Amino acid sequence: MKKTILRKYARLIAEAGVNVQKGQEVFILAGLDQPEFVRMVAEECYKLGAERVVVDWDYQPLSLVDNKYCSVETLGTLTGYQKARWEHYVEKIPCRIYLDSDDPDGLRGADQDKMLKAQQMRYPLVKGYRDQLENKYQWCIAAVPGSAWAKKLFPELTKHQAVEKLWEAILSTSRVTEDPVEAWRAHNADLHDRCAYLNSLGIAELHYTASDGTDFNVGMIPEAEFKGGGDTSLQGIFFNPNIPTEECFISPMRGKAEGIVYASMPLSREGQLIENFMIRFHEGKAVEWHAEKNESLLTNIITADEGAAYLGECALVPYDSPIRKSGLLFYNTLFDENAACHLALGMGFADTIRGFENKSLEECRALGINDSMIHVDFMIGTEDLNIDAVTRDGKTVPVFRNGNWAF
Amino acid sequence: MKKTILRKYARLIAEAGVNVQKGQEVFILAGLDQPEFVRMVAEECYKLGAERVVVDWDYQPLSLVDNKYCSVETLGTLTGYQKARWEHYVEKIPCRIYLDSDDPDGLRGADQDKMLKAQQMRYPLVKGYRDQLENKYQWCIAAVPGSAWAKKLFPELTKHQAVEKLWEAILSTSRVTEDPVEAWRAHNADLHDRCAYLNSLGIAELHYTASDGTDFNVGMIPEAEFKGGGDTSLQGIFFNPNIPTEECFISPMRGKAEGIVYASMPLSREGQLIENFMIRFHEGKAVEWHAEKNESLLTNIITADEGAAYLGECALVPYDSPIRKSGLLFYNTLFDENAACHLALGMGFADTIRGFENKSLEECRALGINDSMIHVDFMIGTEDLNIDAVTRDGKTVPVFRNGNWAF
Repeated sequence: MKKTILRKYARLIAEAGVNVQKGQEVFILAGLDQPEFVRMVAEECYKLGAERVVVDWDYQPLSLVDNKYCSVETLGTLTGYQKARWEHYVEKIPCRIYLDSDDPDGLRGADQDKMLKAQQMRYPLVKGYRDQLENKYQWCIAAVPGSAWAKKLFPELTKHQAVEKLWEAILSTSRVTEDPVEAWRAHNADLHDRCAYLNSLGIAELHYTASDGTDFNVGMIPEAEFKGGGDTSLQGIFFNPNIPTEECFISPMRGKAEGIVYASMPLSREGQLIENFMIRFHEGKAVEWHAEKNESLLTNIITADEGAAYLGECALVPYDSPIRKSGLLFYNTLFDENAACHLALGMGFADTIRGFENKSLEECRALGINDSMIHVDFMIGTEDLNIDAVTRDGKTVPVFRNGNWAF
Repeated sequence: MKKTILRKYARLIAEAGVNVQKGQEVFILAGLDQPEFVRMVAEECYKLGAERVVVDWDYQPLSLVDNKYCSVETLGTLTGYQKARWEHYVEKIPCRIYLDSDDPDGLRGADQDKMLKAQQMRYPLVKGYRDQLENKYQWCIAAVPGSAWAKKLFPELTKHQAVEKLWEAILSTSRVTEDPVEAWRAHNADLHDRCAYLNSLGIAELHYTASDGTDFNVGMIPEAEFKGGGDTSLQGIFFNPNIPTEECFISPMRGKAEGIVYASMPLSREGQLIENFMIRFHEGKAVEWHAEKNESLLTNIITADEGAAYLGECALVPYDSPIRKSGLLFYNTLFDENAACHLALGMGFADTIRGFENKSLEECRALGINDSMIHVDFMIGTEDLNIDAVTRDGKTVPVFRNGNWAF
């Protein structure tokens, strides 16, 4: 890929993505696949005045080796220097950039049970720090092509060709145009207007129907609001947490979901695809589920902890989103969740509560925001999906018709 | 390179190199160049019973970016989580593996002055931890080819060919034979016998002469002894700190060096070559030096701190060493120092003092071991170098004749 366009993308991530402020620290987590691009991002952060940029490199095959040879205790504990890292984050509130290039099949063959147990051990150790950081810092997830990921999408091409093709797909769906920062300003304005309209309706519940059999109601938290595109940290800094993003999303009321949803796309999980699955909800909880393929992985998700069976997110994405129109299944949530309407099992977002900045996490959860160590998106948007909003004053307002915005 | 031979090399590093003990932690520092090999090394460490293997990846071009944009204060301080890392090393005494693949020119263009100032600021912060770790842990430096490094040696080859050729050079000079662990056992026995002979002589000083003009005397510490090949940590674990190694080395008496030495090979430093240089010593100290090329870099070394002008090491390496015979200048000290006799400016090795395990560092330094934040080797071995030992009882014993062992 040409250096000039990569430089624009690096700038987009540093300026519109995390919006580095003078004197801030930046931590970048990246795979080994595109080191020269990672260097460019670091450089753009410095040009915006970063005091220090630290890159943590991640090599997925090592996680497999660790998973094979380490004990659950070793994988599930935090060493002193890992705790010191978290303490540093809490103290300094640095920007965090995640440059995802993972092979969707990279964890195939891992001991899932061990992985889950270690995650369950680690979660409470990390939770205190995470809660202290929530909504305080600017972060951004963006993608760069890894060769294994690229070959998964384009198996017929050479490695080099596949990587170039995935670069093209990433850059076009991420709106890396002549002036990407301006393109993102305009895109944010559109998402902002749609959220404002939805929030003006006073929605009590959303009702989803589609020809695949989806017939589903989900209740809203009166204090919650739709959000989309950029976000503002508690320190008052605007940033774009996801590049790309196409969704208007909200966290629904824990305990208020009834009916059946059918997945419209496979769910890529731990190197495998969960395919053709449905989930039935009763009183907010997943009570029945089936998958034609890899049902046990779906069961692992839903039973990971007590909150994993409840919903954390409802996201509205038009069927004619650029990502769906690319015709690609990216095997990567950052992209695939922006191809279609989706729900997420697990953790909800406290910052969807109006005035969350003056509330504690516990207060937000008491209002109905779900809590869990997982947050797993799955797609339910189809070309004939209809969604109606039932408002608190009893009106029915069309929100989606035939897979796209009705307004 | 074939996976079977790489697997043998990985095993050599884990078993003969650091000699991982059951339940030990291992920290690997590696460039991004050969991740699959790094994974193999991690795996071999686990097979030997490592409890946890942590890989820290290093990408040299980022150091250049940091050097350009960070303040000396930022580069020269230790953050809390970096201190916590050092505390972890002191507490757990893990094995340390360094897989060097750096581009010898990778730091070209850096602000040398800033780099030196940051290093001078950092050194006292790290020194306390380093002193506590000295001789306690098993460590091993070995090399893997980076493509920039390979192209430096073989500019006429394609990148892929150059990397293969450098793999061959590394593997053959590192004695990665059919049974490398056994080859290293035999090699260690030879180095051990030569050191035992040298130590039996009671050497008061070594006298170097060669046709290039070298005429140089260096005094020995009566309590010091020649060491070579594998070493034993204070915890009693045998390990091989350098792969490859061909030298019998000793730390000379600080303050006792007289005469002139001429470098027989260029010194690769911070991406540049210091060429055709000489150093004159008086009362142990470098008092005059000249280089045809990059003299200022030599000056930076010698004036880095007070101890940098004194010697920390005298190493004896035959002119027919496999590395010299390969005909390659590796632009890497690990190899080039094993091509010929060399001296090192800066820090000496306290563990060359007999019974050092029952002495404090301060006691070793009081006996004549030099202290400095630097340790820079430079080659003086030529094909007509003669070295005589003058013993404490007044005899003269030939040690080297015509560049090779005289015994």
